[in-house]
Amino acid sequence: MTHFADRLQDRIDRLGNPTVMGLDPQPALVPPDILDAALASSPDPRLGLARAYREWNRLLIRSVSDVIPAVKPQVAYYELLGAPGMEVLEDTIAMARDAGMLVIADGKRNDIGSTAEAYAAAFLGGMTLPDGRRIEGLRADAVTLNAYLGSDGIRPFLEAGRANGAGVFVLVRTSNPGASEFQDLRDGQGIPLYARIAEQVDAWGADWVGESGLSAVGAVVGATWPSEARLLRGQMPRAIFLVPGYGAQGAGADDAVAGFREDGRGGLVNASRSLMGAWRKAGPGIHPVDAVRREALRMRDDLSQALDRCCPGRSR
Amino acid sequence: MTHFADRLQDRIDRLGNPTVMGLDPQPALVPPDILDAALASSPDPRLGLARAYREWNRLLIRSVSDVIPAVKPQVAYYELLGAPGMEVLEDTIAMARDAGMLVIADGKRNDIGSTAEAYAAAFLGGMTLPDGRRIEGLRADAVTLNAYLGSDGIRPFLEAGRANGAGVFVLVRTSNPGASEFQDLRDGQGIPLYARIAEQVDAWGADWVGESGLSAVGAVVGATWPSEARLLRGQMPRAIFLVPGYGAQGAGADDAVAGFREDGRGGLVNASRSLMGAWRKAGPGIHPVDAVRREALRMRDDLSQALDRCCPGRSR
Repeated sequence: MTHFADRLQDRIDRLGNPTVMGLDPQPALVPPDILDAALASSPDPRLGLARAYREWNRLLIRSVSDVIPAVKPQVAYYELLGAPGMEVLEDTIAMARDAGMLVIADGKRNDIGSTAEAYAAAFLGGMTLPDGRRIEGLRADAVTLNAYLGSDGIRPFLEAGRANGAGVFVLVRTSNPGASEFQDLRDGQGIPLYARIAEQVDAWGADWVGESGLSAVGAVVGATWPSEARLLRGQMPRAIFLVPGYGAQGAGADDAVAGFREDGRGGLVNASRSLMGAWRKAGPGIHPVDAVRREALRMRDDLSQALDRCCPGRSR
Repeated sequence: MTHFADRLQDRIDRLGNPTVMGLDPQPALVPPDILDAALASSPDPRLGLARAYREWNRLLIRSVSDVIPAVKPQVAYYELLGAPGMEVLEDTIAMARDAGMLVIADGKRNDIGSTAEAYAAAFLGGMTLPDGRRIEGLRADAVTLNAYLGSDGIRPFLEAGRANGAGVFVLVRTSNPGASEFQDLRDGQGIPLYARIAEQVDAWGADWVGESGLSAVGAVVGATWPSEARLLRGQMPRAIFLVPGYGAQGAGADDAVAGFREDGRGGLVNASRSLMGAWRKAGPGIHPVDAVRREALRMRDDLSQALDRCCPGRSR
């Protein structure tokens, strides 16, 4: 079972592209002909919309799986459709894996004790019944976590990750304007909360490092805070940074790669709406999947040029 | 549409019982005859276990709905079963509501922007499709939230709550041993993080107070930290405290009601395993549902006596 960070970094290196495609399905992000046909196919609007999401996710994955190394389904949008949404999430994970992509389930889960164990099993593992049969969870390659509850809320995910070759990304510094409200509170020594969590991210992952030198315990560090990202890299030299905020949230490529290592590795930049909805800005006669692929290639080149600027000695 | 806090406090007052029953289904908490019959009913272990959970939840609700005012399904255990689990969660919410109980979905959700809106719709509201049809979410009476991301991550839930007569409970001080790790970090003025979040909880709920004088923005305050709970009451005079940690996690009734108001209101004490699994400690010949009901009555009386000690002037 290859280490999560090695699998991810290897795929990034092969494709020369540290991008993860957010799969955050919403009606406005599905091309109208797909949406209309799916909604018309069932009297139950949940089933119809679930079909639309499955079909657009399938086309998105097929269109970019040789360009983008990973997908990040945002669990909220699937939960909103109830049971049919969970089926789409399972199918999407299977389709992405079949296409050679890694899957980061963006759930920002957090709890303690047996509940944290249940979430860890739901996203990274599974459970064995008293009669010996097995129930598998989503079996994502990684899940995003919120550490507010402390180390005892994180540990069950680390254990499930180790048992299943998966990883985690812990929220350190989020990309939203209000991130500073609690995350920037400074303790008596002047250390902000997000840096305290970063210390623990480094500690949780210290004995779980792959051959790439990267740990299976990563960190969410928003592209909208590049100077914080540079400081955080010093604190978490082994962590893969999952970087939201590029594109739709206003950060550019130089900001997005600010926390990467000097060798140009150790980071993964998310784009959701700018990829899924790229067809909305395409000219007439451009097929939606072609518009998405074109944007994926543009983003890859944009990040590559930014890495050339920030990290001239990077391995290619 | 009656205010969430008024509906909850009214039900608590009518039953004279500030208890919420956690519905955290696990194989070990389902009586063996129910579990075995359900697992044998389907070749698919997820469907079999989902049937067991649905049936035990049905019996639990029927057994205590005239004693306990609310249920708190812990979403993790349902998610672990995928789509069949989400169906059980929907059915459980419907069964509880039909029995006159309020429903607090314990999801500890947190995100920003359109993703926070999607979670808010999934738990408290719904969405309208381009063709005008409506998809309803779980329509819980309240959902638990994690505030690490800041006010802009909370606001979509407040808006969905207002539109649907629902409420939220924000994690302030959790019940686990590691709660102090980040939650106790003190800023330059000596104020711990959890108290900073409490300030915001009070502010978020200040203009959303019902006739009971209680707000629809509540706080999770663990029973395992009674002195913190007393201080937090001063900071959040209008908040309903959702109190985990009684029973299985070691806190007694006096600790559990430490954060209640002087009139004995404004709090809701959770018990999950001690109720769902009460049959495991019952003597031979006691039916499982009778064992649960007996424990529910014992807990009600235990809390009532503690309220007599802490709050002699309480309204009854």
